[in-house]
Amino acid sequence: MHAYRSHTCAALNTAHVGQEVRLSGWVHRVRDHGGVLFIDLRDHYGITQVLADSDSPAFAAIDKIRAEWVVCIDGRVKARDASLVNPKLPTGEIEVYATGLTVLGAVEGDLPMPVFGDVDYPEETRLTYRFLDLRRDKLHRNMMLRSNVVRSIRNRMWDQGFNEFQTPIITASSPEGARDFLVPSRLHPGKFYALPQAPQQFKQLIMVSGFDRYFQIAPCFRDEDPRADRSPTDFYQLDIEMSFVTQDDVFAAVQPVIQGIFEEFAPGKKVYSDWTKIAYRDSLKWYGSDKPDLRNPIKMADVSEHFRGSGFAIFAKLLETEGNEVRAIPAPTGGSRKFADRMNAFAQKEGLPGMGYIFWRKAEDGSTEAAGPIAKALGEEKTEAIRVALGLDEGDAAFFLGGKPEVFEPVAGRARNEIGRELGLTEENCFKFAWIVDFPMYEKTDEGAIDFSHNPFSMPQGGMEALNGDPLKVYAYQYDLACNGYELISGGIRNHKPEIMYKAFELAGYPNSEVDTRFGGMVKAFKYGAPPHGGCAAGIDRIVMLLADEANIREVIMFPMNQRAEDLLMGAPSEPMLKQLRELNLRVVPKE
Amino acid sequence: MHAYRSHTCAALNTAHVGQEVRLSGWVHRVRDHGGVLFIDLRDHYGITQVLADSDSPAFAAIDKIRAEWVVCIDGRVKARDASLVNPKLPTGEIEVYATGLTVLGAVEGDLPMPVFGDVDYPEETRLTYRFLDLRRDKLHRNMMLRSNVVRSIRNRMWDQGFNEFQTPIITASSPEGARDFLVPSRLHPGKFYALPQAPQQFKQLIMVSGFDRYFQIAPCFRDEDPRADRSPTDFYQLDIEMSFVTQDDVFAAVQPVIQGIFEEFAPGKKVYSDWTKIAYRDSLKWYGSDKPDLRNPIKMADVSEHFRGSGFAIFAKLLETEGNEVRAIPAPTGGSRKFADRMNAFAQKEGLPGMGYIFWRKAEDGSTEAAGPIAKALGEEKTEAIRVALGLDEGDAAFFLGGKPEVFEPVAGRARNEIGRELGLTEENCFKFAWIVDFPMYEKTDEGAIDFSHNPFSMPQGGMEALNGDPLKVYAYQYDLACNGYELISGGIRNHKPEIMYKAFELAGYPNSEVDTRFGGMVKAFKYGAPPHGGCAAGIDRIVMLLADEANIREVIMFPMNQRAEDLLMGAPSEPMLKQLRELNLRVVPKE
Repeated sequence: MHAYRSHTCAALNTAHVGQEVRLSGWVHRVRDHGGVLFIDLRDHYGITQVLADSDSPAFAAIDKIRAEWVVCIDGRVKARDASLVNPKLPTGEIEVYATGLTVLGAVEGDLPMPVFGDVDYPEETRLTYRFLDLRRDKLHRNMMLRSNVVRSIRNRMWDQGFNEFQTPIITASSPEGARDFLVPSRLHPGKFYALPQAPQQFKQLIMVSGFDRYFQIAPCFRDEDPRADRSPTDFYQLDIEMSFVTQDDVFAAVQPVIQGIFEEFAPGKKVYSDWTKIAYRDSLKWYGSDKPDLRNPIKMADVSEHFRGSGFAIFAKLLETEGNEVRAIPAPTGGSRKFADRMNAFAQKEGLPGMGYIFWRKAEDGSTEAAGPIAKALGEEKTEAIRVALGLDEGDAAFFLGGKPEVFEPVAGRARNEIGRELGLTEENCFKFAWIVDFPMYEKTDEGAIDFSHNPFSMPQGGMEALNGDPLKVYAYQYDLACNGYELISGGIRNHKPEIMYKAFELAGYPNSEVDTRFGGMVKAFKYGAPPHGGCAAGIDRIVMLLADEANIREVIMFPMNQRAEDLLMGAPSEPMLKQLRELNLRVVPKE
Repeated sequence: MHAYRSHTCAALNTAHVGQEVRLSGWVHRVRDHGGVLFIDLRDHYGITQVLADSDSPAFAAIDKIRAEWVVCIDGRVKARDASLVNPKLPTGEIEVYATGLTVLGAVEGDLPMPVFGDVDYPEETRLTYRFLDLRRDKLHRNMMLRSNVVRSIRNRMWDQGFNEFQTPIITASSPEGARDFLVPSRLHPGKFYALPQAPQQFKQLIMVSGFDRYFQIAPCFRDEDPRADRSPTDFYQLDIEMSFVTQDDVFAAVQPVIQGIFEEFAPGKKVYSDWTKIAYRDSLKWYGSDKPDLRNPIKMADVSEHFRGSGFAIFAKLLETEGNEVRAIPAPTGGSRKFADRMNAFAQKEGLPGMGYIFWRKAEDGSTEAAGPIAKALGEEKTEAIRVALGLDEGDAAFFLGGKPEVFEPVAGRARNEIGRELGLTEENCFKFAWIVDFPMYEKTDEGAIDFSHNPFSMPQGGMEALNGDPLKVYAYQYDLACNGYELISGGIRNHKPEIMYKAFELAGYPNSEVDTRFGGMVKAFKYGAPPHGGCAAGIDRIVMLLADEANIREVIMFPMNQRAEDLLMGAPSEPMLKQLRELNLRVVPKE
């Protein structure tokens, strides 16, 4: 017989009754039922019930073991009494009568946290004893989910003719807007490598090198300040790049992969296949966000025309300033004073003085009447026009925000979420996707200068000709995939023409020399025969979080850092040895 | 029609004759055949011949393009004349008559190196213009081979029930004997992360966390001094770990994966399936190496008994010192003075005074006679005994080395290689594997102290009991896989018992406190229920090098560093900005 096991802890059933078997695993739970000891023996695959009574030669040994010891059990498979069958376990029809026990790995002292049971533990404890936390069912399942998702993504990419290539990890700085992690070079004193914020330049170089369809499950490194929903050091992305493609080609390649993953790993949830395209400006206008949650049917609308010069003085006054706007958030079924008050309270929590509203109710005479201070100030005709424009009816409401769209849109977006949730309008158990397209290439900074609004490497729509016009009117071939309010994917068709790239950077205030310094490798390559190309990157951690229904990224990473970027189990970061610093020609400067 | 292509450059054949098509790709070659222009248009998939004569509206445009421009061609598929068919190309039966051309990406100035043709270029040029070098057929094929090998490895691992998990890259120092790359922490001034030399501790933690079979195509980072056949910064390994296994279980899991890969990707080469187990000591004795090339049938033998007290004074004297030995390298078919002299010259190049030999030839009377000074000094009886012991015959030779085995074995191993090659004994076009097992746990250092001879994390054979005896007699459950003279895999059954681990380190001079400091995370985990486990790691770059028949690791890596650990294309390492150093609380100290 094998040294440790003849079967796993999920393998035995009534077909094995009477067989001598050997099992190994962790003691999930020990129970003493009046002189009969029961062990739930757990391994990666499942749980098998083991028992011993005082006739068993293993009784004394089993009496000594405790939870989470690793043991090897010899025994005989027995059918359980019908009344004791556990239909929830694959092994629920049998148990193993133990005749021998070997301790393979004991536990010294008390467990700092139990594995059995659902008691919640502080995150610091969970991270310090990650190896115990990972034994718990939920984390075990999350890790297996992640592993299976990554596997399925790879298969789906391969099936579509993509090849996976590994790009360098110790490399040059690849400015993506975040802070680099640096790696001092020992062989070149005073010089540093950087860990890639993304393989952006390398994947573009792969295209210039003549490979047609690249992907990689790529580690990315950004030295970012702590935030709950992101890893403070590294994360993984599904990185994709294709040659000789338009934006629609990228969409057509990506959708079956992502949709397939969601269908495969979110059983019971509806995965919508209609991936609509929404212009960036429209997304902000309709949903107050560039990553709209389309499970929520609410679509906001510009109602400025109804307020301009109206009796509702606050908005009428606002609209005298150019660029200001009034937007309505329709709230079907929200037509009650109580709900309007609740939303008003929400707005105050958001730091606004309040949120104007109209709601439509049944009047005493049976007709529909508009209620609320705005309706009164606007007058019947304008109020009715708004109702018609928003497609609302008796029992519905509308909320209003005014001012500079850039300022109120984030709040409007959150109000829309709140209304959708509160009124039960937001569809549950489903995933809804949309491609957000036509991002503006540039924006005006607070100082009035022109700067890139998103990715500087995207091709401006209209090419060089567009760049010779008003930069603020240039759109980029750049896109995001939004899903349920999250940004899952970001990408673009790249600017592969050196002259257009220099011009694009010049408009943002960067001279050619700086382009050459910062992106030299890639720009040089573009001068030696570059194909048109484009691609995108999808956040693996985010996808797994959505599929596992987890809000914290640490629940889907095997060995995560805590929010202070520390590994509590391994003790990182730590103080280096003096010898190491000397080899690197570095000295630590005391913090001022 | 699609903006860039209706077909790839490998897609068209006689079935498409008469169709209007659009192709995009690189201009591989332009030829002017008396007013008819021929372009070999190349993309990732293949090459298609395009032509234009002066009747073509695209003629003038095509006349201007040069090698490596990226162009889009509109045209009509024509069958080639029978005499012009190229059976080597999938598209060799057709050509495309161009009617339109769009330049998608031009080349500025001259190409620093051509893509077409086989001219060799200095490595610095090749690395500086890696994107051009990668367009060349050989590198393109190597990269595709690597991608396909990695894909196949993953599928084979999955098929065997392994799960891939990602382990941290920014983490704590994991001492594996090499130098760490450090990453300064911005949030924790004066503290550093390290990049993992291997995921050793993490994969063991994954086992302690209850996952049964782990693998990862894992990046590993070692700050090593330059050497031709290794990457100076990072490399990839197939990292494997399993719970509840013995050494033979690991072998049984790994062999089908590796053998399958070699069978799949080395067509026409024989892949031996008999993976013999050879004890480390025997491997050194028989082959002079712990990574023997078994394609070479020569097996060396200890012939000390024949020389002890013999008339060959040099060896007789040597053997008076304990520990010394005389070893024979049999050389079937090497029985000539000329060959013996050649091997003597080889030995002198290796820094030895020479290499003693006997060879057996036909005497004038038709019998077999032994020739050479050793034979004379030994006398007929002993010489004959050696011949019989080595299984040699007329026409064969044997070479002899004496002294301390540790000293002469490396030379003996190289002599064995040389003899096998010179005499054509070494089988070609095949892969032969062997598991090298039973590595000694400890060795005596030059200062007489006891130190680990290999991996300190391996379980000593015999466990605690063995450690209480003579450490130098303890073998470890540690193993390598040798293939054609290379070490492909290294692994072990791990020491998962804290008390045995403390004892093992204590014998090597490390107090418990140091074990806790250096491997704290892992040792702590072992105290909370650790399963017996083991695994191994296989060098991906090395496997691809063997399959691609390349001697230089840079031929199988997409964007390699040069031997001074510089990325000539991206310009790494480079000087950081002062702001970055300030954020990291670091100062560069001028080199003394």
